[in-house]
Amino acid sequence: MNDHRLFTTLDLAGTFAFAISGAVAARDRGLDWFGVVAIAFTVACGGGVLRDLCIGAVPPAGLTDWRYLAVAMAAALMTIAANTLVVRLAHPVILFDAIGLGLFAVTGAQKAMIFGHNAEVAVLLGIVTAVGGGLVRDVLLNRVPVILQREIYASAALVGASFEVVGERLGWLSSGRTWVALAACFALRYLSLRYKWNLPRSSGRGGSGAD
Amino acid sequence: MNDHRLFTTLDLAGTFAFAISGAVAARDRGLDWFGVVAIAFTVACGGGVLRDLCIGAVPPAGLTDWRYLAVAMAAALMTIAANTLVVRLAHPVILFDAIGLGLFAVTGAQKAMIFGHNAEVAVLLGIVTAVGGGLVRDVLLNRVPVILQREIYASAALVGASFEVVGERLGWLSSGRTWVALAACFALRYLSLRYKWNLPRSSGRGGSGAD
Amino acid sequence: MNDHRLFTTLDLAGTFAFAISGAVAARDRGLDWFGVVAIAFTVACGGGVLRDLCIGAVPPAGLTDWRYLAVAMAAALMTIAANTLVVRLAHPVILFDAIGLGLFAVTGAQKAMIFGHNAEVAVLLGIVTAVGGGLVRDVLLNRVPVILQREIYASAALVGASFEVVGERLGWLSSGRTWVALAACFALRYLSLRYKWNLPRSSGRGGSGAD
Repeated sequence: MNDHRLFTTLDLAGTFAFAISGAVAARDRGLDWFGVVAIAFTVACGGGVLRDLCIGAVPPAGLTDWRYLAVAMAAALMTIAANTLVVRLAHPVILFDAIGLGLFAVTGAQKAMIFGHNAEVAVLLGIVTAVGGGLVRDVLLNRVPVILQREIYASAALVGASFEVVGERLGWLSSGRTWVALAACFALRYLSLRYKWNLPRSSGRGGSGAD
Repeated sequence: MNDHRLFTTLDLAGTFAFAISGAVAARDRGLDWFGVVAIAFTVACGGGVLRDLCIGAVPPAGLTDWRYLAVAMAAALMTIAANTLVVRLAHPVILFDAIGLGLFAVTGAQKAMIFGHNAEVAVLLGIVTAVGGGLVRDVLLNRVPVILQREIYASAALVGASFEVVGERLGWLSSGRTWVALAACFALRYLSLRYKWNLPRSSGRGGSGAD
Repeated sequence: MNDHRLFTTLDLAGTFAFAISGAVAARDRGLDWFGVVAIAFTVACGGGVLRDLCIGAVPPAGLTDWRYLAVAMAAALMTIAANTLVVRLAHPVILFDAIGLGLFAVTGAQKAMIFGHNAEVAVLLGIVTAVGGGLVRDVLLNRVPVILQREIYASAALVGASFEVVGERLGWLSSGRTWVALAACFALRYLSLRYKWNLPRSSGRGGSGAD
C-alpha cells in the first residue's frame, strides 16, 4: 500500500471515528434519525468546510465528495441500529479519533499552504480543520465545547499543524515530515487521554462550566 | 400572473413567514427591539447566506437585495407592535412557512446547480437554504435546534431538493419539476404537522433534549 | 502622528479590548488556557472573518496578520496571569471596547464599499464586523448573546456604519466623515453605558432570557 492510498484509508477511518462521536452525542441528546445523521456529518466534515470557506475553495470538499457523506451515514446508522457494537468499538473509535485529529490538522495545514497562504493561516486552519466539526457539534447540541474546557485536543492539533508548517518552511522531505507531524499529534492526544493530562485552568471565578 | 412573478411573490411570502417565526421566538426570549429585528432577518436570510458562502456567490443575495431586509423588518415590527394580529395570523404563517420551506429547498438546489456543482452539493445546499436560518436562530437563542429533535422539517426539505435535482438530471421540464418538488415538500411538511408525524428517535440514553 | 498611524494604533487597541472581554468571559466560564486564548482571538477577529467571508476577501485578514493573533494572545495571557491588573484596567478596557466598536463598524463598512458592494451590504457588514466576534463568543460560551438582549451596542454600530456609508454616498470628505462616524458610534455606546440607556423590549411572554 503506497502512501497516498494509506492516507486515503486513514482519512476515511478518521472521518468515521469523528462521525461516530457526533452520532453518539446526538443520540444521547434525544435527536431524531435525521438529527443523528446531520450531526454525524457535521462533525466529520464541519472543520474542513470552515477551512475551505476561509481559503476560498468552494464548494467545500466535504460537500462534493460522496464518500464522506456515505461514511457519516454509515456511522449514524450503526449508532442507531447497533448500539452494542458501537459500545464494543469504543476503544478503536478513540484510537481512530486521535488519528483523525492528526490527519485533519496536517492535511488542513497542507491545503492552506497549497492555496498559497502564509504559515499563520496554515497553522490556524489546520487547527480549525481538526476541531471545527466538534465545535459546531457542541454548539448545535447547546453545550460549551468540551475541547475548550479540558483535554489536550486542540493543542495536539496545534502541535501537528505547526510541525507540518515549520517542516515545510525548513524544506524537510514532504512525506517524512507529514508522518512525524501526524505521529506527534497522535501521541500527544493519545497519551493525554491515557494519563489524564489536562491543560491548566486559570484561577477564575467559575470553573464549573455551568454558571 | 406568470411563473416568475408568482415565484417572487411566494418567495417574499415565505421570507415573511420565516421572519415571523424568528421575531416571535426572539420576543418570547426577551430580546430588545434590535435583537428581534436581527433574529427575524437571520431566520429569513441565514440559510441563503450559508448556501451562497458555500458556492462562492458573494456577497450573499440576502445581504444585497433590500426587499428581504424590508420584509424581515416588517415582520419584526408587526410582532413587536401588533401581537394580537400575529396570533391571529398563526395559521397562515404556518402555511407560508411550509411554502417557504419548499421554495427555499428547491431554489437553493437550483442555484447550486446553476453554479455548476454536482447533485450531492445541490441537495445538501437545498437543505441548508431551507433550514439554515432556523438553525442559526436556535443557536443564537441558546437551544438545541428543534428541527433536529422532532418534526418532519429538514427531511421535507431533503425530499423537495432531491426531487428537483433528480428531475433535472433526468431531463424533466424545468417548470413542471419545480412545481412537483415544491408540492412534495409542502405536502410532506403540512401533513406531518396536521397528523403529528415524527421521525423516530433512536433508543439512546437521553430523550429529554435537556440533559 | 498621521491619520493612518493613529488608525492602526486605535485598531490594535480596540482589538486588545475585544480580546480582553473574550478572555475574561472564557476564564469565568472555567475554560483551560487554550480555550481562553481561542475565545480572546475569536472576539478580536471573528467579526472581521465573517465580513471577509461575505465579501470574498479570503483568507480573512484576521488570520493573515500576525499582529491580531499576538495582541489576542497578550490579552489572554494577561487575563490568566495578572488578574488584578485586568481588574484595574476595567475602565480603560470599556473605553477601548467602545472605540473598537466604532472603528470596526466604520472600517468594516469601508472595506465592503472598497470591494464594490452596495450601501445595504456595507451597513450590514459594518455591524457584523463590530459585533460578530462577541456573538460567536456568546454562542461558544453557550449563552444568549448579551448584545441582542439589552444594551445599546449593535445599534451604536449601526449608527456608525450608516453614517460612514451615507457620508460616502453624499461625497463627504473621507477623513472627516470617518471621524464623525466613529465619534457618533463611540458617544452613543459610551453614554448609553454611563446613563444605562437600553432599547425597549417588546411585551412578550418572556423577558427573563432564561426560559
